[in-house]
Parts: sequence; C-alpha cells; structure tokens
Amino acid sequence: MSASTVDPADPVFRLHTGGKLAVASTVPLASREDLSLAYTPGVARVCEAIAADPALVDDYTWVGHTVAVVTDGSAVLGLGNIGPRAAMPVMEGKAALFKQFADVDAVPICLDTQDVDEIVAVVTALAPSFGGINLEDISAPRCFEVERRLDEALPIPIFHDDQHGTAIVVLAALRNAAALLNRKLGDLRVVVSGAGAAGVAVTRMLVAGGVNPGDMVICDSRGILGPDRTGLTGAKAELAATTNAAGRTGDITVALRDADVLIGVSGGQIPEEAVAGMAPGGIVFALANPTPEVHPEVAARHVAVIATGRSDFPNQINNVLAFPGIFRGALDARATRITDAMKVAAADAIAAVVADSLTPDAIVPSALDPRVAPAVAEAVAEAARRDGVARR
Amino acid sequence: MSASTVDPADPVFRLHTGGKLAVASTVPLASREDLSLAYTPGVARVCEAIAADPALVDDYTWVGHTVAVVTDGSAVLGLGNIGPRAAMPVMEGKAALFKQFADVDAVPICLDTQDVDEIVAVVTALAPSFGGINLEDISAPRCFEVERRLDEALPIPIFHDDQHGTAIVVLAALRNAAALLNRKLGDLRVVVSGAGAAGVAVTRMLVAGGVNPGDMVICDSRGILGPDRTGLTGAKAELAATTNAAGRTGDITVALRDADVLIGVSGGQIPEEAVAGMAPGGIVFALANPTPEVHPEVAARHVAVIATGRSDFPNQINNVLAFPGIFRGALDARATRITDAMKVAAADAIAAVVADSLTPDAIVPSALDPRVAPAVAEAVAEAARRDGVARR
Repeated sequence: MSASTVDPADPVFRLHTGGKLAVASTVPLASREDLSLAYTPGVARVCEAIAADPALVDDYTWVGHTVAVVTDGSAVLGLGNIGPRAAMPVMEGKAALFKQFADVDAVPICLDTQDVDEIVAVVTALAPSFGGINLEDISAPRCFEVERRLDEALPIPIFHDDQHGTAIVVLAALRNAAALLNRKLGDLRVVVSGAGAAGVAVTRMLVAGGVNPGDMVICDSRGILGPDRTGLTGAKAELAATTNAAGRTGDITVALRDADVLIGVSGGQIPEEAVAGMAPGGIVFALANPTPEVHPEVAARHVAVIATGRSDFPNQINNVLAFPGIFRGALDARATRITDAMKVAAADAIAAVVADSLTPDAIVPSALDPRVAPAVAEAVAEAARRDGVARR
Repeated sequence: MSASTVDPADPVFRLHTGGKLAVASTVPLASREDLSLAYTPGVARVCEAIAADPALVDDYTWVGHTVAVVTDGSAVLGLGNIGPRAAMPVMEGKAALFKQFADVDAVPICLDTQDVDEIVAVVTALAPSFGGINLEDISAPRCFEVERRLDEALPIPIFHDDQHGTAIVVLAALRNAAALLNRKLGDLRVVVSGAGAAGVAVTRMLVAGGVNPGDMVICDSRGILGPDRTGLTGAKAELAATTNAAGRTGDITVALRDADVLIGVSGGQIPEEAVAGMAPGGIVFALANPTPEVHPEVAARHVAVIATGRSDFPNQINNVLAFPGIFRGALDARATRITDAMKVAAADAIAAVVADSLTPDAIVPSALDPRVAPAVAEAVAEAARRDGVARR
C-alpha cells in the first residue's frame, strides 16, 4: 500500500473517519424558556453589555477559553507543503490535545493562502473570536514575520508552537540533564544542528534560560554559522552575530569538537565520529522524526544523556508537554502576550515535575503525565502577572 | 438597571458565564497508543491521503460536518452595528442551535472588519476549514454582495440566514395559511413592508415558491417601490422593476388596499386603518421583534391568519426552523451551493410537518419540534441531488 492510499479498515483511518472534534453546547436548549435565555430575547442583554464594555467578552462568551490553531499547511510534520486541507488532521489532533490536557477549546483554522500579508490580515480579522492564536506548521522564514507582526498587532497571546513549544521542552530537558550531571547551563558548550524555525527558537530559549550565547554554535545544512558565512539574512544573520564567540568555521564535526550538548532539529544525519568528538559526559537531543539525527544506540556509546522526539525511546521531547499548559496559563491570566519569561517559567515547571526522580532515562515527564499542564499553567500565569502582561 | 449593566445574579448573565460552547475531542487520547493513532506518527498517513485526494477531507476530518457562523457585527438582532465582540453571544447561540437541532458542528467567527472586500478575502482564506458558511447579521446592502461573491468563489454552501432563513419559513407559513384558506399562492396579492435583507429575500423566495411577482408590492420607509421612485439601485431597483405590475404609488395604506397578504419585515409600525383596507380573509405576518408592525390582537379584527416573530404569540416565524436542517441536508449531500430549489424544498418540508393538522393558530411547527430539522435535511439533500449540486 502506498503512503497515500486509504485503507478504511486500517485503525488510523477508522479512527479518523468523521474527524476527531465536535462542538458541544454547554447550555440547555430543550424548552422555550431555555431558548429565551440562551438566544432571543435574553441574549440581547449580554450583547449590549459587551458593546458597552468589550472586555466582558472574556466573561460572557467562550472567547476567554478558546484558541485558534492556525496553519497555512506549508510545513506539516515532516511532510512539507501539503496545503490547508491535508493539514487539517494534524490541527484537529492539536485541538484534541489542547482539550485533553488543559481544557482549552481549540478550533483548527487551515488557511488557503501562504502569503504573509494575507495570513496576518486574516488572523487579525478573526482575532476577536478567540482568546489566543496558536500558529502551527508554517514554514520558516515566513513563520517569524507572521508571529512578530501578529504579536505586535493583537492584544492576545500569539505562539508559534513549532518554534517555542519545542524550545521550551528542550530547555526543560536540558535543565534536568544538566542537574543530573551536576553541570550549570552557563558552563555548557551547546551545538544546535538546524537553523530553521525550531533551531532559531531553541537557541533563543536556551539563551533566555541561562546558556551563554557565545558558547553556542549553530549549524545549518551548509555548516557552522560563523565569520566565514557571507550573505546571511534575518534570523541566521542574527544567530551568526550573537553565537560562536570562538569564531569556529566548518561542518558539524568541527562544531561538535569538545561540545557538551548536541541538539538536533535538522532532520539531517550526523555521523558517529562527529558525536565521538564531544566532551566526556555529553548530552544529545536528536529530535528529528521519525529518524533521529543520531540513533540513540549510537549516541549512547559516546554521551551520558540522550533524548529524542520519539515515543518509543526514553526521554521524549514532545511539545504536548508545553502548549496546553502555556495557553491555559495565558488565558487564565488573560495575558496580552506570551513573554520570554513565561516560556522560561513553562520550561522550569515541566522540569520540576520530575526533578526529584531524575535518571538518565527520565529527564522529562511522560507526554501523558497529567501533572504537567496544570503546573505549567500556574507558572505561566504567575510569570504573566510578574511581567505586567496579565489582565487578571 | 440600564440595558448595558451586568447583573451577575440575573439568569441570563448566569447562563452566559463562560459562554455557551465547548470543543470536544471525539477520540480517546489516554494512552501512548491512542496518541500514535490520533496524532503522530499515525496522523501523517491521513494527511498524505488528503494531499493526494483533497476531497477526502470530508471523510477523514470534521470539515464535512462543520459550519462557520460568520458575522461582522454590523446588524445584530435589533441592536444594530455593535461590532464583532458584542455579536459573539448571538453567534454562539446560533452554533448551539445548529448542534441541538441538526448535530451540525458550528464555529462562531466574528470578524474585525466591515469592508466587503476584506470579509470576502478572509472567508475565502478560511474556507478549507469548514463544510459551509452561514453568514449572519451583516447589514444590507453589503450582505448581498458578500454572499454573491462568496457563492461564486467557493465550492461549499454559503447561506445568509437573515435573508434566506426568514424567507424560507415565511414561504412555509404562507403555503399553510393559503391551504387553510383554500387559496393558491399564484392568486395572492402580497405586500412586503421592508426592503432590507429580509424583505428582498422574502420577495424572491415567494416568487420562487409560486407567487406572481406582478402581484407583489414592496414598500420601504419611503413608500411603494413603483414607477415614481427614481434613483433606486441594486436590489431595490430590481424589485421596483419586477413587482407591482399595476404601478401603484403611495404609502403602505395604498399598497395594502385589497391585498390578501401583508408580510412585515421592516420594524416600522403599520396603522390599523391600512390593515383594515385588505381584502377579506387576509393573512398578516408581522415579523418585527420585539414589536410587531401590527399587534396581533389588532390584526385579528381584520384578517383570518396571523403570525409573528415572537414566541409568546401563536405561529412564530423563527428561522431556527430552517437553518439547522438546511445545512444538515447540504452537508449530507456535500452540496457545492444552496440553490433556490433547495430553499423551496426546505420551506415545503417545514410546511408539511403540520400540514395535516392546520388551524389558524398552527400554520408552522413549534421552534422546538424535533421532526422539522430531519425533514428539512432530507428534502434539501434530495433537491441538491436533483439540481446537480450534490457531490454524493
């Protein structure tokens, strides 16, 4: 059977028949009296109250607990630019996870445009309908501009999960791996393989969490971002200017020489000899799915702690640990945006759930651990209040 | 208490606290195995299948049973242009009714723009996410252009409920009123008071249902649409050209002289002496809410059958009788649009539910009658197939 063939008897297709979401009414509508309260004429009084004070929309509609999961279908999983319709099963899955883990009501919005100006205009126009916007599977570098412009334009939380969800869980995992090895984040030499959306966000998040940017080396498919790399623009130019204080040039093998940490978010393969050149007691997060940049069994010959993006190896770096609690906390605090401190607080909360029982095979909680989202939500809401972006 | 004051103890505000909708996951997400089917890695196979055949989005996502309830907040109930946030309670109520009566999963989308081009662009962009678009509470004449352009641009049903929902139930009620009085629609002289969105749609619907357009007279706030009215444009010009074959000129009193039917969709008041001039055995539908154009007790002195838009008088013309079943039928047939024949079929189905038990006080089913939506859905799906707009 080819990858695109439908087999209705296949458990995956059986489960997906009719999709994975429904809308539920939370009020009774069985009697004339019910209708007169929930609909006309009663509803007019609620409309008038919100017209007089628009902030009441958070109290008297579902807006205060909703998130739009918005994609343009340009970078879906590892499948690439498959368009808005083919992206829908992933967005529905995301919405289902929002509900399951954090009781956030998420609506998938798959857009029939990949133009940055149009995406920004559409999301801005529909923003009054939602309490937050989770951007998903939008390809780099457009995702950076879309997020930045929406963050500036709208008074609600905007969060590109492919960047920050992954980055938050990486920071959580690195905190615990470092603790296990009695290392400080500020002393670690960190290599990030991949300078797309996730690589850029991981780098920024680790710096926000305490890693010294000069001690980081970022590689893209052409090698180290360093002084010899001319013609870089945007996020890569910024990374080249702020990381790699030693001015290394060359490929991933050069980058990894004596490094303490390798974080793979590239999808490419990294040879064993490159990993062998890392400093003793190293840490490898090989996050490409389904094929990690280094197989965990190979990495295990050379480093002390290993994580992947897969559920069938220990230490799964899964952004479901982050996004449900992030938005739950942001909505609970009615945050106007999601700050770096809120992201760091989320990472710390994820790490803390398993901090008392660390082993090399348990540096992050299970994706299904029900303690995570409430802990993240509380930490994020508190950070929002400290940062002055909370409206309650 | 002023109209815009919040009283948290008021049953309406108590009921609306937190809104009236939620999203539900319809698949289990409790185990690692669940996640691997509903999310990664399993979901990728569904994405690939849809990428290869986009029509599968209707089978393997929730798109096939969803409707976006889209407003710009420009003409909400009788409250006018109160904006997208204040419109949300009405759109949520609509979505709740969609679920309650027809198991359609409807998502309120309240837009922060009232520009026709922008509304069309936004709805076009988000259309892949939904199986149909219910336009709601968009003011005339913009609503006509928005609906027409979306209907031309998109391969899914577009339906402006304020126009067609009301018109369909009016046709249903008129069919039964005429049957009760042993009259034929083609013999009735019909006056429509109001030439906004509802008046235009009611006129077109009655013509589609068998009323002779030359025997109709339409009035706006300035009087009869007739030969003396210069400078008319758009829908009003079309009505002036196609109705009023006798060339009457003047006010509503002139219009109603010897008329068989008065349909009020204006909000204005109509004097008793005007109604008194109607032909014997007349029919009055006074649909303004909360104050009918003619009070039913006043109308009862002069005509045989009376309907209003209110639930506390007999014969409530409520578009909840139409829109849930219309979209259920259109989605069931995977209709690419909603044709006039589908609307007439809906009206006939509504009328048929009570056709065997007609009395002057029971020409339409109750808004809560559970037989209505399934009957409408079946009739609409059949009409879609007859019209060649069904994809199954």
